[in-house]
Amino acid sequence: MLLETKLPIRYIFRRIMPDVLRVLFISVMFQLIKEVFGPYLPPVPLQLPTILGSSISLLLAFKIGQSYDRWWEARRIWGAIVNDSRSVVLQLSNFLPPEAKAPGPDGRTPVQALAYRQIAWSYCLGQSLRGLDPLAGLEHLLPERELRYAVAHHNKPLGLMALHVQQLRELVSNRCLNSFQQIQLDATLVRLTESMGAAERIKNTIFPTSYRLMVYFFIYLFLFTLSLGLVETIGLWEVPVLLLTASTYFLLERTARYLQDPFSNKPTDTPVTAIARTIEINLRQLLDETEVPPPFPPGPYYLM
Amino acid sequence: MLLETKLPIRYIFRRIMPDVLRVLFISVMFQLIKEVFGPYLPPVPLQLPTILGSSISLLLAFKIGQSYDRWWEARRIWGAIVNDSRSVVLQLSNFLPPEAKAPGPDGRTPVQALAYRQIAWSYCLGQSLRGLDPLAGLEHLLPERELRYAVAHHNKPLGLMALHVQQLRELVSNRCLNSFQQIQLDATLVRLTESMGAAERIKNTIFPTSYRLMVYFFIYLFLFTLSLGLVETIGLWEVPVLLLTASTYFLLERTARYLQDPFSNKPTDTPVTAIARTIEINLRQLLDETEVPPPFPPGPYYLM
Amino acid sequence: MLLETKLPIRYIFRRIMPDVLRVLFISVMFQLIKEVFGPYLPPVPLQLPTILGSSISLLLAFKIGQSYDRWWEARRIWGAIVNDSRSVVLQLSNFLPPEAKAPGPDGRTPVQALAYRQIAWSYCLGQSLRGLDPLAGLEHLLPERELRYAVAHHNKPLGLMALHVQQLRELVSNRCLNSFQQIQLDATLVRLTESMGAAERIKNTIFPTSYRLMVYFFIYLFLFTLSLGLVETIGLWEVPVLLLTASTYFLLERTARYLQDPFSNKPTDTPVTAIARTIEINLRQLLDETEVPPPFPPGPYYLM
Amino acid sequence: MLLETKLPIRYIFRRIMPDVLRVLFISVMFQLIKEVFGPYLPPVPLQLPTILGSSISLLLAFKIGQSYDRWWEARRIWGAIVNDSRSVVLQLSNFLPPEAKAPGPDGRTPVQALAYRQIAWSYCLGQSLRGLDPLAGLEHLLPERELRYAVAHHNKPLGLMALHVQQLRELVSNRCLNSFQQIQLDATLVRLTESMGAAERIKNTIFPTSYRLMVYFFIYLFLFTLSLGLVETIGLWEVPVLLLTASTYFLLERTARYLQDPFSNKPTDTPVTAIARTIEINLRQLLDETEVPPPFPPGPYYLM
Amino acid sequence: MLLETKLPIRYIFRRIMPDVLRVLFISVMFQLIKEVFGPYLPPVPLQLPTILGSSISLLLAFKIGQSYDRWWEARRIWGAIVNDSRSVVLQLSNFLPPEAKAPGPDGRTPVQALAYRQIAWSYCLGQSLRGLDPLAGLEHLLPERELRYAVAHHNKPLGLMALHVQQLRELVSNRCLNSFQQIQLDATLVRLTESMGAAERIKNTIFPTSYRLMVYFFIYLFLFTLSLGLVETIGLWEVPVLLLTASTYFLLERTARYLQDPFSNKPTDTPVTAIARTIEINLRQLLDETEVPPPFPPGPYYLM
Repeated sequence: MLLETKLPIRYIFRRIMPDVLRVLFISVMFQLIKEVFGPYLPPVPLQLPTILGSSISLLLAFKIGQSYDRWWEARRIWGAIVNDSRSVVLQLSNFLPPEAKAPGPDGRTPVQALAYRQIAWSYCLGQSLRGLDPLAGLEHLLPERELRYAVAHHNKPLGLMALHVQQLRELVSNRCLNSFQQIQLDATLVRLTESMGAAERIKNTIFPTSYRLMVYFFIYLFLFTLSLGLVETIGLWEVPVLLLTASTYFLLERTARYLQDPFSNKPTDTPVTAIARTIEINLRQLLDETEVPPPFPPGPYYLM
Repeated sequence: MLLETKLPIRYIFRRIMPDVLRVLFISVMFQLIKEVFGPYLPPVPLQLPTILGSSISLLLAFKIGQSYDRWWEARRIWGAIVNDSRSVVLQLSNFLPPEAKAPGPDGRTPVQALAYRQIAWSYCLGQSLRGLDPLAGLEHLLPERELRYAVAHHNKPLGLMALHVQQLRELVSNRCLNSFQQIQLDATLVRLTESMGAAERIKNTIFPTSYRLMVYFFIYLFLFTLSLGLVETIGLWEVPVLLLTASTYFLLERTARYLQDPFSNKPTDTPVTAIARTIEINLRQLLDETEVPPPFPPGPYYLM
Repeated sequence: MLLETKLPIRYIFRRIMPDVLRVLFISVMFQLIKEVFGPYLPPVPLQLPTILGSSISLLLAFKIGQSYDRWWEARRIWGAIVNDSRSVVLQLSNFLPPEAKAPGPDGRTPVQALAYRQIAWSYCLGQSLRGLDPLAGLEHLLPERELRYAVAHHNKPLGLMALHVQQLRELVSNRCLNSFQQIQLDATLVRLTESMGAAERIKNTIFPTSYRLMVYFFIYLFLFTLSLGLVETIGLWEVPVLLLTASTYFLLERTARYLQDPFSNKPTDTPVTAIARTIEINLRQLLDETEVPPPFPPGPYYLM
Repeated sequence: MLLETKLPIRYIFRRIMPDVLRVLFISVMFQLIKEVFGPYLPPVPLQLPTILGSSISLLLAFKIGQSYDRWWEARRIWGAIVNDSRSVVLQLSNFLPPEAKAPGPDGRTPVQALAYRQIAWSYCLGQSLRGLDPLAGLEHLLPERELRYAVAHHNKPLGLMALHVQQLRELVSNRCLNSFQQIQLDATLVRLTESMGAAERIKNTIFPTSYRLMVYFFIYLFLFTLSLGLVETIGLWEVPVLLLTASTYFLLERTARYLQDPFSNKPTDTPVTAIARTIEINLRQLLDETEVPPPFPPGPYYLM
Repeated sequence: MLLETKLPIRYIFRRIMPDVLRVLFISVMFQLIKEVFGPYLPPVPLQLPTILGSSISLLLAFKIGQSYDRWWEARRIWGAIVNDSRSVVLQLSNFLPPEAKAPGPDGRTPVQALAYRQIAWSYCLGQSLRGLDPLAGLEHLLPERELRYAVAHHNKPLGLMALHVQQLRELVSNRCLNSFQQIQLDATLVRLTESMGAAERIKNTIFPTSYRLMVYFFIYLFLFTLSLGLVETIGLWEVPVLLLTASTYFLLERTARYLQDPFSNKPTDTPVTAIARTIEINLRQLLDETEVPPPFPPGPYYLM
């Protein structure tokens, strides 16, 4: 996630460069074509690029709207993950009778085991969505046995969720939870599974590509007719005019494209690592731990 | 689903051709008409096509928006099917006591029977939405008896869902599930039935046809007034100008039309076969099987 | 619902006629006014109709968007009715113990009684939304007693719903259903009541009329300024130009108006009769009946 | 709610007048300014008002969209109140055993007491949203004691809801309802509380005022530049042209403003009195009463 | 929240000033540049700023739409908090048997303890969202012990929520609440946790900054081309024309920016303090207290 306060010029320039160069090349080409073939070229009236310009604006407005919706939905999903992570721990610690709160063989009480696994699940889901090693850095959160179980699963977060289910089943068969409570916890796990599935859906669904091609085609057509329309009026000044107008369209298209893929290790990503850290802090405090890690530090101008 | 990386020029050309030829024919016709009736034709001011052009843009923007919403809803429904398929298996394996997990007469434990039937349901729903044989390739997933039951049903996926319900009823009457657990599983099955109904609704509801006719009418009117408006300025150059502008409008309309029917065996479809395969892989791993099929391979530039 | 394949020219023409004639009359009037008062009329610059044209496009785009949302919501409600009708029958047949499945005094088992009443409810709701006789053709689905009960109710579908509730209350007091199951069935009936209420809301809520008046006013103002703006350029050719442009605006407005009332016995209606028939087929198959009626046949170019 | 069939010219005129007069005054002022300072005024090109005109259209389109959403949400909330009012009565009469249906000390059975209080709640909420006396006309629906309790509450509908809760608590402590049934009824009451809160939210939240100021500012700027742009072409004809164009913008803004406050005793209101009457008719019929009041009569061109 | 009736000119002026000064500086600069380099500057046709103007309008319309959605979602979340605060108190007082209603050691009955803590939670959440001291002014609402517990938590409202959970757990282990009732109350607490998380999400998520940069870039480009386009026509009059047009764009952008951060101690904020006071009044009346505080008084032109 980009941070408002620190966006450096350097970042913006690096992002703009390829588009600017491409448009520069194109407008210089047009200029040369007009030098050579000038007399044969038609005097295009400026209404044509006006019509095309308003079409491009509408198409871009639609695309930005849809991309923003994907980006916001991704943020909303991770907000729900924060809520349900808090809820599942509050619920289990609410439901378990005092006698069921003794530490298990690995030194963790049932609530601790669930809470640490839930923290691990959050990191794991974030890393898996970003295409990183899903289990990196989770060794101190998960016991040996659970780590091995997760390794064997193709979909690691789904594996950790299966371990949640196993633990609850054991608590039920030991009569530490009654059926009502099992159902209530099950409902929270179902919501977490839904959030996981929804994030995977956003990750895996490609925005219709032909749409982008058409936007590009329209922008080039616009440049071409505008260039012909300006043929007699502004001469060499045409190059910077084309450059500035078209760059902005390309930039908007690129902004939209970044927003629509919020799990791709870019500064515009949903800050899944920072959110997982927030979950860690909240859950550790609900376990009454006093030493909690600090919030995840932001990068120079973004938060991952 | 089209894949970003591989969209070939050939695919785009094949898609554009009929529209381009039609517009070519029309603009040549206009040219001829102007040759013959030139002096009798009115000098249409270019504001008229400008007005029409902005109306067309708005109508197309609305249509693309609505079509995209249908397409995205279809994708969302299949995402919910993935989640609920995982949930129903996790829930049953969570709820069943150890003594109820023995294999039945056909060699399958209750959880296996449910999981395989759920996999079969996913393939079956996808194929039925695409108008293919709904039960093709499901012989190895369903026992003889269940296959026969499904064949007798008009709506095959609904038949499989009825078999789910039968199995749960038996487990309840054998006291392997209590009423709470039955209700929780019932709620998941209700959600799956809802997803099925929603996908059928998208398949069966036709976008108002008169809307498309009006968009076409507007585009032709636009071409006509533009052609008359350009009568004195650009001569024969008019043909490529009309060609490029109008083709883009037609292309946008066609893109929208493809998106709005996401279950029609086209490369722009929701990739229901690949999603059903994902469900198969996930459920088999939740059954602790080690040999799972590979993900469904993408085609040359799309994933079905 | 209009069917894509069969939309006849005749249907479109009948729909366009009144609008076309009105615009024809208006543009001829303008022509006469200009003949007589020509020298006193101002030379309106064409920017004015351009501004008005873009305003009209935006207002129409908003109106089409909202009307489409109503139409789609109506379709979505009837999709939910299909789902919940299937669910309520699956649930009751899932919940009832074998000994409670004997036929009652009128020869119907409890599940059959519920299923037939549910089919009747679907037809009844559709006919009541369309303003037809709500109970027509339901004699073979409902026993004499229930039909009489429904006749006495102002809101017939609500009366049938009250009979559902009575039946469930009896099954509970006979100990055929436990409290959990009662609650689960109750939740499904609540959803059906909600769908009924939502359909009635769409039927009874009138889209703000003043909005339409303003759109009309804008179109006439547009015609008037355009006519004055074209005063010197295109002469008598003005009549067809005005005719074509304005007709399309009126047509769009009319399409929107049809879409926004999806229960009014027009070919653009939500096909409630065909959907009720689908419910009948599905429920009869869930009752293991082998003789089911065929799907409702489409009309010449629409499905009711 | 305005009724489509009867909207009189008089109503529209009264609504338009202030705006029309204001614009008339402004355009006459502009005319005078131009008379006096003419030579010093710049020849504004007509592209400027064109740009402003398209901005105004977009801003108005956004505002109408949001206002319509508020209006439609208000209607949807009252639709949910109809559904949940029906549900709460159906549920209680479904859940109560026969022996619990005897009339209480005030001659009403428990179901009757709940139903009449629910009818009273609907009228009371509607009147309180409209800023009228919330308890007017409810004497025949509520017993003396309950009326006194409600009078003491600041938020009268919340007081009636607390009486619902009291009654259910008594039924539970008398063992007439079990815990499941209590929960199910509680869920319906929670939904009714939510609808109440949502209607109050719409009533109390003011649409950002600065937005309206900017729309006005834009319209005046548009009028000013348009007036300067037309300085040489159309002379005194400018007054009616400005008048018609600007009036329509103001009218659209005013329509939006009316829609956005659907509980303000205007003809464009959500018809809460008529809906409360529908609830009364439905609930009385569910109590098997045969004498029910007629539907609320519409006014000359609207339904309150 | 701004109040419609009292918006003073002074407030608007203070808001506009920086933008106006900046545009003034820019247009004077342009004027100087044109004085000096006039002959070398190109005669930009006015179609260019027209195209840019319509792009800016669309981008601003999108941005205002999204910002308004954030603002409305924030208001909706606090509406849900009002509802659920009422519900949780009604539910507990409905569920507790008479014998469990005795005051505890700190002189408060269980319902009072919950209600006061819920009031404190509302104030605390509002102050924490606004970046103020979250626990300021809550001493009279919370017992010493609970206050100390909350201080130790990083996320104070989450700490208070954990105290709710503790209290319910004790009531359950004392058999004052059964499992059903626990689940129902738990569901309400889960909803309150969700509202808290959603408000935090809106607080913490920054609207993509690059979008704003592009809008600014477009506005400057628009100013620049407009200034060049007006070079010959309107002379020094250009300065006020640029000033008025551009100020409005900047103002719209600024309005959008304010709306998108509804928890930042600005007059456009969601009125969280006033809403928390409403919750206090409602809950105290549900406790049958007769002395309730007055509604939170509005400021000169806004309500916090």
